Amino acid sequence: MVVSVLSMDEFEIIKNYFKRESFRSDVLLGIGDDGAVLDLKALDNENLVMSTDTLVENVHFPSSINAGLIAKRALCTNLSDTAAMGAVPLWFTLSLTLPEENTTTAWLTDFSQGLFEEAEKFGCTLVGGDTVRGHLSITITICGKAPDKEVLKRTTAEPNDMIFVSGTLGDGRAALSLIQQKKFVSERLLYRFYCPQPMIDLGVELRNLVSSCIDISDGLVSDLTHICNASKVSAVLDVSKLPVHEEVKQLFPDDFAEFGLYGGDDYQLCFTAPESEKAKIINAGMRSNSRITPIGRIVKSMGSNKVMLEGMDVNENISGYRHFG
Amino acid sequence: MVVSVLSMDEFEIIKNYFKRESFRSDVLLGIGDDGAVLDLKALDNENLVMSTDTLVENVHFPSSINAGLIAKRALCTNLSDTAAMGAVPLWFTLSLTLPEENTTTAWLTDFSQGLFEEAEKFGCTLVGGDTVRGHLSITITICGKAPDKEVLKRTTAEPNDMIFVSGTLGDGRAALSLIQQKKFVSERLLYRFYCPQPMIDLGVELRNLVSSCIDISDGLVSDLTHICNASKVSAVLDVSKLPVHEEVKQLFPDDFAEFGLYGGDDYQLCFTAPESEKAKIINAGMRSNSRITPIGRIVKSMGSNKVMLEGMDVNENISGYRHFG
Repeated sequence: MVVSVLSMDEFEIIKNYFKRESFRSDVLLGIGDDGAVLDLKALDNENLVMSTDTLVENVHFPSSINAGLIAKRALCTNLSDTAAMGAVPLWFTLSLTLPEENTTTAWLTDFSQGLFEEAEKFGCTLVGGDTVRGHLSITITICGKAPDKEVLKRTTAEPNDMIFVSGTLGDGRAALSLIQQKKFVSERLLYRFYCPQPMIDLGVELRNLVSSCIDISDGLVSDLTHICNASKVSAVLDVSKLPVHEEVKQLFPDDFAEFGLYGGDDYQLCFTAPESEKAKIINAGMRSNSRITPIGRIVKSMGSNKVMLEGMDVNENISGYRHFG
Repeated sequence: MVVSVLSMDEFEIIKNYFKRESFRSDVLLGIGDDGAVLDLKALDNENLVMSTDTLVENVHFPSSINAGLIAKRALCTNLSDTAAMGAVPLWFTLSLTLPEENTTTAWLTDFSQGLFEEAEKFGCTLVGGDTVRGHLSITITICGKAPDKEVLKRTTAEPNDMIFVSGTLGDGRAALSLIQQKKFVSERLLYRFYCPQPMIDLGVELRNLVSSCIDISDGLVSDLTHICNASKVSAVLDVSKLPVHEEVKQLFPDDFAEFGLYGGDDYQLCFTAPESEKAKIINAGMRSNSRITPIGRIVKSMGSNKVMLEGMDVNENISGYRHFG
C-alpha cells in the first residue's frame, strides 16, 4: 500500500526542534525552504568534502539508549569521516526516520539537544532535513572544506611508510561487550562508545605530513585493509605496540589484543607517513591533544596478504579476515 | 541488541553497483574514500544549494515495483527540490538501507541502472554513499549551484503577485488512486508518478522573474500554504483555471478538481510574480518545454485563512486544511 507521510507533522517537528538560528554567517538560507543556500566565498581555493552515513536502530545503537546519545553518536561517527579526510566540517543535513512511538516531545527534545551540542562543539551547523515515518534511522550528510591537494586519501600509502594510530584502540569493542552483557560500563568507555570524538583537529594537523589516512570504524585490521587495497600495498603490524587502554587490558585480559585489532567503533585515525615525518607527526598529535603511536610499516604488496601481524606468540596470518561482528 | 553491519558486503555492493567513473570533471575524488572531494572553481560567485529527502518503502512507493523505478522516483523527487530553488544539480550522495531479501544482484542492477540513467539526464553525479541493513529506505542529498541572490525562495511572495503553476496537476494523485485500486494505469500517468521530471530548466529560467517558488510534493494547496506562511501573505486560487489533464478529468469526473488542489506527488513548480513579468514567464516556460498557467493571486495576509478558493459552485474556505493523505 502507498500512503503519504504526515507532512504537516514533519513541519511542526522541524520548526519546533530543529530550526535554530545558525551561528555560521555562511548559511544564507537555512532550514525551512526546499534547500539551504550556502555562501562559498570563504572557501577560496579549498575543495568541498562531502560524506554520508546512516545509523539504524539495533544495528548501530541499542533502542533503549537516551535520544541525546543517539544523536551524538550519529553526528560524531559521521564527523569522523570528515576528520579522516583532513577536512573541517561546515554544514550538515539530517534525515530522521521516526516510528510513531518515538515521536514524543521528550525524545525529540533530547535528540535535538544532543545534536546541537555536538554540532556546536565542532563548528558545524544543521542546514536542512527531512523527517518521515518508519523504523528509527538517522542519515547525516556533511559538507566540509579542505585546501586543494591537501585532503588525506586512502590511495596513497607507500612501501616503507610507518603506520600510526591516534588514541587508544579496542575501547568501542570493550564498551559494546559490557553493554551486551549488561555489565557495569565506566564513564570513560560509555563516552568513547556514544560520543566518539571525531579527530578533526588532528586531521587538519596531518595535512602535508601523512601519505594516507582512514578512520577506524570497522576495526584497525579491516580499515587498514582498505588503505592496502586502495594503495596496492600490504602492511605489517606489531601487535605488541597496539595502544590499548589499561582499563580494557584489565577488564579483558584474554581479549584486549583482539579488541584492539578487530574491534569496531573506535573512530580513531589510522595513517601512514615516511619515517622522516615521525617527529612532526608526534608534535602534531600533541598540538591536537592526541597520543600518536607507531604500530607498524607498509610493505610492497604481498598479493592477497594485506595485513600481517608480528609481535604475537603465534604469527597469525589474517589475510582471510573479513569482519568481526 | 547491538550488532555491527556487514561492512565488507557494503564495500562489495558499492564497488559492483555504484562506483562508476564520473562524467563531471569537478569530482576530484569520488566513491571509495571517507568522503568525496569536489572542485569548487567552476562555482565562481555562485552559492551552494543543499537539500535532502528520504523515501521509505510502503510510505513513498509500493514494495512491489521495479527497483529501477524506485531509484528514479527517489532521485527525481529529490531533484525537484533543487529545481524549486532555481539551482542546477551537481553532486549527490545516496544512503541505501536494504533488507536481506532485496540484496539480490537483479534488484541492485535495476536500482543502480535507474539511478544512473536519471542522474545523467540531469547532469549530476553520485559521489558518495552508504549501504546498511534494515527496512528499505533511500536518502539522497543533493548539492547544486545557483548565482548569489538568484535563488528562488518561499519567503518573498508579495500581495498582488500572480500565482502560476507548471504542467498539469492531479496526475500523481490519479496515478496513485489507480495503482491502489489495481486498475489500468496509462503510460503517461505511470511515468508521471514514478519519474516525475524535475523542472530544473524551468527553475533556472525563472531566476530574476519570480518572487517566490516551491515544488508541489504534498499538493497545491498544502505547498502554496507553505509560501503563504513563509511570506506572511494569503492566496486566492481560481479553481476553474487549474491545469488538469483531459485524461484525469475523464477518469475522475467527480474528483479531478480535488486531485488538482490537494493531490500530492505532482512535482510541478508553483511560483508567484508581479503581473508585469507574465509574458516573460510564459516565454520562459516555452523555452523549457513547460506549459505555465496563471491560477490565482497573492493577497494581504487574512490571518488564519491562507489559501482561499474561487470559481467553484461552493466557495469553500479551506483554511483549516492540513493534509490530504
